[in-house]
Amino acid sequence: MFGKIEHLGIAVRDLARANETYTKLLGRPPYKEEAVTSENVTTSFFKSGENKIELLAATSDDSAIAKFIEKKGEGIHHVAFAVEDIHAELERLKKEGFQILNEQPKKGADNKLIAFVHPKSSNGVLVELCQEIAE
Amino acid sequence: MFGKIEHLGIAVRDLARANETYTKLLGRPPYKEEAVTSENVTTSFFKSGENKIELLAATSDDSAIAKFIEKKGEGIHHVAFAVEDIHAELERLKKEGFQILNEQPKKGADNKLIAFVHPKSSNGVLVELCQEIAE
Repeated sequence: MFGKIEHLGIAVRDLARANETYTKLLGRPPYKEEAVTSENVTTSFFKSGENKIELLAATSDDSAIAKFIEKKGEGIHHVAFAVEDIHAELERLKKEGFQILNEQPKKGADNKLIAFVHPKSSNGVLVELCQEIAE
Repeated sequence: MFGKIEHLGIAVRDLARANETYTKLLGRPPYKEEAVTSENVTTSFFKSGENKIELLAATSDDSAIAKFIEKKGEGIHHVAFAVEDIHAELERLKKEGFQILNEQPKKGADNKLIAFVHPKSSNGVLVELCQEIAE
C-alpha cells in the first residue's frame, strides 16, 4: 500500500531561475540542492506541508530530464509515493500487471531507495516508489 | 505560504477503468466519486497517506480535460496545494507577478474554494490553490 506523496518531481530548464520562481510560489526557499551524477541532473528540494517539491534540471543532453523537456516542455515529470517496503511493493505491483522500470531499486536523491512504474501502466503518470534508507 | 499537496489531479479517458488501475496501484479503492457539472468532468478521489489523488474524466468534448488529453495524452493535469486563506494567497501571488486564471476563487470538487495559476508562470505546472470551505 502506498503512503503519502513523498515528492512531486518537476522538470525545469534552468534550476537557478526555477528556484526563484518556486520560492515565490511556495512562500519559502529550497532547503537543499543535490546533484545526482548517475542521472545527469541537479535537483533542489522545497518543503510544502508534509510534502516536498523536487525541481530537476539536466546537466547533459542525454539526461532523461533533457529528453522529457525536449518532447513535452517543462512540467511535472513524476510523482513519488512513500512506501515502507519497496521490495514487497514491487512484487505486489508486478503481480498486478504493472510494468516496473527497475529490476532492483536504486539509490536516488535525498537518501532514498527508488524504483519507477512505467507510465503506460498508470494512465501516463510516471510513478516513483520511494523508501527512506535507514541511517 | 502553501501547505501540503491537497491533491494531484490526473486526466484519464475512462474513469471506471482508471479506478481499477489506481485501486491496484495505490492499494485501496476510491473513497468517493463526484461530478463537477460546471467543468464537464466526473472525478474520483483516493487517499494516499495525508494526500489525495483525483482522477478526472471529461463528460463532453469541450471540457478542459478532453482538450488536455487530446493535446498531451493522459497524465498529471494539475497539483493542488492547501492554503488557509485563498484570497490572501492570490493577492500575494499577483504581487509576485504570477498570472492567475480566476479573478475570484470558485467552488470546486470535494467542498473546496479553488483558483488556478497559469502554467506559464510556474514552469509548465498548472497549480491549484485549494481552501477547505467551513461546514
